[in-house]
Amino acid sequence: MKTDIDIKVTDGGICAARGFKANGTYCGIKTPSIDNQNPDIKHKNDICLFVSDVVCNAAAVYTKNKVKGAPIIVTKSNLEKSGNKAIAVIANSKNANTCNSDGVEKAQEMCRLVSQELGIPQEQVIVASTGVIGQVLPIEPIRKAVPILAGGLCYKKNLEAATAIMTTDTVKKEYAVEFELDGCVCHIGGMAKGSGMIHPNMATTLNFITTDCAISSNLLQKALSEITEVTYNCLSIDGDTSTNDMVSLMANGLAGNDEISSEGESFDIFKQALYEVMANLTRMLAKDGEGATKLLECICSGAPNKNTAIKIAKSVVCSTLFKAAIFGEDANWGRILCAIGYTDADFDISKVSVDIKSNKGIISVCKNCEGIEFSEEEASTVLSDDEIYILIHLNQGNETATAWGCDLTYDYVKINGDYRT
Amino acid sequence: MKTDIDIKVTDGGICAARGFKANGTYCGIKTPSIDNQNPDIKHKNDICLFVSDVVCNAAAVYTKNKVKGAPIIVTKSNLEKSGNKAIAVIANSKNANTCNSDGVEKAQEMCRLVSQELGIPQEQVIVASTGVIGQVLPIEPIRKAVPILAGGLCYKKNLEAATAIMTTDTVKKEYAVEFELDGCVCHIGGMAKGSGMIHPNMATTLNFITTDCAISSNLLQKALSEITEVTYNCLSIDGDTSTNDMVSLMANGLAGNDEISSEGESFDIFKQALYEVMANLTRMLAKDGEGATKLLECICSGAPNKNTAIKIAKSVVCSTLFKAAIFGEDANWGRILCAIGYTDADFDISKVSVDIKSNKGIISVCKNCEGIEFSEEEASTVLSDDEIYILIHLNQGNETATAWGCDLTYDYVKINGDYRT
Repeated sequence: MKTDIDIKVTDGGICAARGFKANGTYCGIKTPSIDNQNPDIKHKNDICLFVSDVVCNAAAVYTKNKVKGAPIIVTKSNLEKSGNKAIAVIANSKNANTCNSDGVEKAQEMCRLVSQELGIPQEQVIVASTGVIGQVLPIEPIRKAVPILAGGLCYKKNLEAATAIMTTDTVKKEYAVEFELDGCVCHIGGMAKGSGMIHPNMATTLNFITTDCAISSNLLQKALSEITEVTYNCLSIDGDTSTNDMVSLMANGLAGNDEISSEGESFDIFKQALYEVMANLTRMLAKDGEGATKLLECICSGAPNKNTAIKIAKSVVCSTLFKAAIFGEDANWGRILCAIGYTDADFDISKVSVDIKSNKGIISVCKNCEGIEFSEEEASTVLSDDEIYILIHLNQGNETATAWGCDLTYDYVKINGDYRT
Repeated sequence: MKTDIDIKVTDGGICAARGFKANGTYCGIKTPSIDNQNPDIKHKNDICLFVSDVVCNAAAVYTKNKVKGAPIIVTKSNLEKSGNKAIAVIANSKNANTCNSDGVEKAQEMCRLVSQELGIPQEQVIVASTGVIGQVLPIEPIRKAVPILAGGLCYKKNLEAATAIMTTDTVKKEYAVEFELDGCVCHIGGMAKGSGMIHPNMATTLNFITTDCAISSNLLQKALSEITEVTYNCLSIDGDTSTNDMVSLMANGLAGNDEISSEGESFDIFKQALYEVMANLTRMLAKDGEGATKLLECICSGAPNKNTAIKIAKSVVCSTLFKAAIFGEDANWGRILCAIGYTDADFDISKVSVDIKSNKGIISVCKNCEGIEFSEEEASTVLSDDEIYILIHLNQGNETATAWGCDLTYDYVKINGDYRT
């Protein structure tokens, strides 16, 4: 993936790609009764719908948790039935529709409502839910919302959708790029929600990506799975893998390029653009981790193989102790070494060096697995920034990987001490 | 290990067993200069020594972290050279003597000082250090302390030793039992330190156990390794595996029983008594986890095999999200299900039931992987206690395992945000 192409950042999130319309609204999934009493209160959106003008090839990656949200089961089954074709996505926050006896039925009903309203096959609808586990999903508010959502679909309402999937997120997360293929301008755009129950070894969080690039279902799935490994799966907020995580990718081909149907230069360009979108959404998710005040980006280089680089980088961003030290702006590099040391991978620890970097400077803290004297004053300056880079040099090969995380703060504890109420 | 024997709790920690003398003192490992200026200030002990009247058979389990503290390297080498014989243990807090270029040299020097003072072979000394990683260990305070420690050795100074190994621990941790073998009263006693950087897959934390029971080195090691798996290795405070963790077990045979040299009833009795000591120390470590306000004990029963039971119980006590919920006294059982679900083991999730229990009551929250209605008021009462039991029934076999942990609190973040200073 070293193709040097021109990828430009653009606006529009999931509506950046041609032919995708979106909408979002508040329907009162959590407290429908309150909504009825006070119709004037402005609530955060809790449901969204987005639709392609034409049928898309679709790909998805799902959580590896054994407890799977009902929407995961239904989406997977739908895409199997439709031969990986999809037109619309419906997603809600405030309720995960998981561990409920009527969960699958309700998730199917959400697809049916969309199918009926838009006149499309039910199995071409993707459904997703995020929020509290084990509370029955009220279907009435959704039944009322679907016609409203469909009626207001628009090529510019990506933001209405992006805010609807937020739970404890403090900012909406959208990213989009454009690039050229066969003289045609292609777009890939996406939206994501975080920000707790996030940990590698899965398809992390809810992520929806759209593109107008023409590409076969097989290669779409291949690209999505590959890029998920080095982006979302290299992200950890708290080591908990959610039951409802999903990334979906829909390609409607409206850009007009020749369909990518075999690996080669065009596929590499597509993957590079997809990486840009997914890596940037990953970074946004890390930075907005529950209670986070600092983004942690750990880059492990000089590794004997890619997998070792990934494992070590992840191990450091997952270390609770190191995350707490970074919150305290304490250059406690012993905890970085400790986390490298308990990584389950085969490498020579004695060659490891570590630098800590931010936009305010860089300090070398460890060489050949031994401490280096550094100025505590300089260290404080470096760590006072809100984006901290941990640079690990294994000095035993040429592979590199990046993992993303955030600091552990009082607010994480506060947010999660009382989430349900 | 179902032998039904009479095991009595007794006093004395590492001095409960006949022929073990201990001592502890403050020598100024962290700030020797301050100590010189203010000799009257009463500091916490930071170094201890304990000694058997006769040579002991010895066993040990060490951290699996690739970064190993110098004392780990030296102890391992000593026990290899001595054929698993030991007489004395020297241990300090305030400095881990890890990731230092002169670490091994300093750890050896600690053994040499003890060997010289007591007139015993250097390779029969066990050495351990705990504290900050990557700061050079000052040897002068230790050189001065060893004769003082040796001069004051006493059969009743177990407490002096137990406080010397404390770091962020808020209470000392000792436990001892007595039981009969061949008409002789035998003792097993131990001391431990916590309370962060603690996670399964290792020999967790510093733990020193002594016994006057006569038992061969091989069986001593076998018993220690087996019991470590189901006690210390089932404990997690924060998911971080330390570089300096070690459990040592010394048996001097002074109880007068026939030496246990083969598996059988006597060995089973010994293991059961050892389990009592190690499980209770594990519980104390969990309860005194950094910043903890509540002990979490997760018992997974009805498992198809022991390993699955262990993995599931551990997964729950390790869940950052669930730990935060328990701190907030929020019966967010979805997070328990979620943690069970991402356990890497083979089982049928659909049969799982969960109860939450304390001395104030019990609530059933989930049956067959679906939520059960429960009274939030009752849940609040149950969760207001400071020892919370999570009872998981897999309903697919007969194996059971227990794991221990604690809640995640503001204080954990505070303690670890600025540990070095």
